[in-house]
Amino acid sequence: MRVLAARIASHTGKDVVVKGWVHRIRELGGISFIILRDRSGEVQLVLEGSADLTLESVISVKGRVEANEKAPGGAEIHVGEIEVLARAEPDLPIPINQDPSQLSLDALLDHRMLSLRIPKIRTIFTLQAGLVQYFADYLRSQGFSEIKTSKLIATGTEGGTGLFEVNYFDRKVYLAQSPQFYKQAMVASGMERVFEIGMAYRAEKHDTPRHLNEYVSLDVEMAFIETEHDLMDLEEGILAYMFEKVKSEHEEVLRLWDATVPDPERVKDIPRISYDEGKKIASERAGRKIFEINPEAERLLCEWAHEKAGIEAVFVYGFPRRARPFYTYPEGRSSTRSFDLLFRGLEITTGGRRIHEYSMLKETLPLFGLTEEGLGGYVEIFKYGCPPHGGFAIGLERLTQKILGLQNVREASLFPRDRRRVSP
Amino acid sequence: MRVLAARIASHTGKDVVVKGWVHRIRELGGISFIILRDRSGEVQLVLEGSADLTLESVISVKGRVEANEKAPGGAEIHVGEIEVLARAEPDLPIPINQDPSQLSLDALLDHRMLSLRIPKIRTIFTLQAGLVQYFADYLRSQGFSEIKTSKLIATGTEGGTGLFEVNYFDRKVYLAQSPQFYKQAMVASGMERVFEIGMAYRAEKHDTPRHLNEYVSLDVEMAFIETEHDLMDLEEGILAYMFEKVKSEHEEVLRLWDATVPDPERVKDIPRISYDEGKKIASERAGRKIFEINPEAERLLCEWAHEKAGIEAVFVYGFPRRARPFYTYPEGRSSTRSFDLLFRGLEITTGGRRIHEYSMLKETLPLFGLTEEGLGGYVEIFKYGCPPHGGFAIGLERLTQKILGLQNVREASLFPRDRRRVSP
Repeated sequence: MRVLAARIASHTGKDVVVKGWVHRIRELGGISFIILRDRSGEVQLVLEGSADLTLESVISVKGRVEANEKAPGGAEIHVGEIEVLARAEPDLPIPINQDPSQLSLDALLDHRMLSLRIPKIRTIFTLQAGLVQYFADYLRSQGFSEIKTSKLIATGTEGGTGLFEVNYFDRKVYLAQSPQFYKQAMVASGMERVFEIGMAYRAEKHDTPRHLNEYVSLDVEMAFIETEHDLMDLEEGILAYMFEKVKSEHEEVLRLWDATVPDPERVKDIPRISYDEGKKIASERAGRKIFEINPEAERLLCEWAHEKAGIEAVFVYGFPRRARPFYTYPEGRSSTRSFDLLFRGLEITTGGRRIHEYSMLKETLPLFGLTEEGLGGYVEIFKYGCPPHGGFAIGLERLTQKILGLQNVREASLFPRDRRRVSP
Repeated sequence: MRVLAARIASHTGKDVVVKGWVHRIRELGGISFIILRDRSGEVQLVLEGSADLTLESVISVKGRVEANEKAPGGAEIHVGEIEVLARAEPDLPIPINQDPSQLSLDALLDHRMLSLRIPKIRTIFTLQAGLVQYFADYLRSQGFSEIKTSKLIATGTEGGTGLFEVNYFDRKVYLAQSPQFYKQAMVASGMERVFEIGMAYRAEKHDTPRHLNEYVSLDVEMAFIETEHDLMDLEEGILAYMFEKVKSEHEEVLRLWDATVPDPERVKDIPRISYDEGKKIASERAGRKIFEINPEAERLLCEWAHEKAGIEAVFVYGFPRRARPFYTYPEGRSSTRSFDLLFRGLEITTGGRRIHEYSMLKETLPLFGLTEEGLGGYVEIFKYGCPPHGGFAIGLERLTQKILGLQNVREASLFPRDRRRVSP
C-alpha cells in the first residue's frame, strides 16, 4: 500500500511504498539523497551510489522508514527498490524545484503545464479550490440553491458590447458575460435564492494586470431584499466565512506567500460610502480632483478604509446610471441602487438591486436603446410577477490574487485567456 | 419578519408576514382562499370578499395564523393586509398551478422563464443542485481538489470533430468538448486527484432525447491507478453516496416524480462486462446479432443487469480503439482500457485509463493523424514525467434524467441548447 509523503514519520521502522516525482537529487560521499514529491508534500529517499534518474521522473519506491531529525518531516526512506513509472526528458524548460519568483510571467504561462508543478504555484489553486467550496457551503447554509445556466446566449446582458461570437450551426450566438438573466429567472421561479459558479466572458481588449477575458464568476441572486444593503450584509457573511476558513485551513499557503487575510471579525466593519463620498475621499488623498472611481481611486479608498476601519475593503454604493447596465434599479434621475466592493485596491465585486417591476422595465429599455423583443424571453420574468431582488458577483481570480498578494490576476487562473494567449 | 410558508404552523395564534407568488385563487360563499407559494412550499390565505389579484402576482401579506386541519400544513393565515409587490399580467401563456404533464416539451422550453415556476418542474433542479454538491463533497472526502479550467481551446481533444468555433479577437478558437488536457495537466502537476464541474460543448447535429449541445460535465481524474477498475471503484463510491443522499434528502421530489434511486448497498454489485460480452448478451436478448453497444444494446444490458444483480446499471469495459479518443490507453492491437457506465438504459459515463508514457504517446499520434506540434503544450505533460492515471465524466443532465425518469434530457437542463434552441 502506498503511503503519502506527509505520513511517513508514523511508519518509522516499517517497509513502505511511496510514489511521486523526483523533485531534487543530491550526491554526497557516495550516497544519493532524492527528494520525492507527491500531493501531500515531500520525503527524502536515501540510497547508496548514484541514482540513474532525471528530475520530474515519476517513480515508485519500496524502502524502510528511518527516523532522521534533519530530513523533512523527521524521517527518511532507505531505498530498497526503485521502479521508474515515467521517465522525464532531461531538458526541463523551467526549473520546478526553485523559487518561482525568478521566472517571468510569460515563462510561467508559456510552460503552464510545467509551472503548475512548482509547489508554491500549485498552492494558489488549492487555496482557490477552498474559496469555491466555502462560497458554496456558506450560501447553502443560508438557503441558496446552486444553478448551472447556459453560457451560449442569443443576446448580450450588459449592453451588447464586449461579446465573443460563436458560430452555432447556421447562426451566431454569444458567450455569456454573466448569468444575469438566468439568475433573475431563477429568483422569479420561486427558488428565490440562487448561486452559480461558472465561466464569464468579456471580449475586451484590455491588457492589464487586473483583466482576464475568461474568468470564474461567483454569482449570487436573492429575492425579497429591502435595499442593496441586504446584499452587502450577505457578502460580508460570505467573506467572513471565507477568511475564517482560509486562516484555519490554509495557514501554510499564507505563510509561503507571506500573505494574510483580514480578521473575519472586522468584515462587518467594512465602510459603506456613496459614490460621491468616494470621489471626495479619493480626491483629498490624491491632492487633486478625481472624477470617477478609477483604479487609482480604488487604491486610495482601500488605504483610507484600512486606516479608518482596520480592514482594506470598502463598499461604494450609488454608482451613476450611465455606468451601470439597464437592469440596475435606478435611484432618482441619474443614480442607481448598485454597489462595488473594493478589496486591497481592486474591485472584486459588482452588484446591486435590479429592476423587478414590468412598468419600470418598459420605461427603461428605450433609454438604453433596447426593445422587449430584442431581449427574447427575458421580459417574461417581469411581466408575470417578479419579487424585489438583487445580487452580485465576485471574481474568483481577483479574490485569490488579492488574498495572496499576486502581482497579476493571470497568476490566479489555471489556464488564463487574454488577448494573445489561448494556449496551453 | 417574514415567515416561510412551510413554517407557518409553528406560529399559530400569532401575527406574521408572508411573501410569495399567488398560486391559486378560489372564491366560495363570499370568502377568497388564496394559495401563496414561496421557496419553502405553499400556505392558504383567507380573506373576506373578492381578492383583486392575478395569478403569479408577488405579494406581501400580514395576517394571523389560525389552525385548520384542512389547509396545507395544518394552518392558514387570516389576512389583515395585502401589498402587491409586483402585479402579473393576466394573460399567462402557460398554467403554473397545474400538472405539467399536460404541456408539450416545446411549451415547457419556449416559456422556460415561466415553466421553471411550476413546482414539480422546479424540483428537478433542487435535486440537480444536490447531485452537484454530493459529487463534490464525496470527492473532497477522498482527497480530490476542485479545478476550473478554460473552455476556450486552440485545438480539440476528442479528435477534432464536433467543435463550436469562437471568434476570439483576430483568430479562431473552439469551445472545449471536455477538460481532458487540463485534467491530465493537473494530475501531472502533482495535485494527483482533481475534479471539475463545468460546461462541455458538442457541435453534433443529433436531435434525440439523449443529446444536448451544451451540458454540465462532472469530471474526475486520478493519478497512480493500477487499472481502469480503480476508476470504476471510485465511481461506485460516488454513486452510492449520491443515491444515499437523494434518498434521505429528496424523498418528496422522488415521490412527486414517482421515482426511486437504486439501493446504495447494491451499487457495489454493478456488473462489469467486456465490450464483447456486452454484444453477446445484447444479441441474445434481442434475438439477433448486435454489432456494437448502441442505444438498443444499452437498454438491453441494463435490463440484464437488473435481473442478474438487482441494479439497473452495468459497466462495459474494453471498448475498441477506433471508438475512443487518441489519449485512451490501448490494450493489445485494437482494444482499450476504457469503459462506459450504463444506467437505466443510457450511457451516463465514459472513462478510462489514459496514455501516460511519452514514448507510447509519440507512437499513437500518427495513428490518429495528429502531431506533437498540433497539440500545443499538451505533450509537455508527458515529456516531463506523468504518473499512470485515468478518469471519467458523468453527464449531470443524463444522471438527473435517469434518476427522475424524465423522457427527454432537455427537461433536466435549466436552459437547454440544441440545434434549434438558443433562447431563452
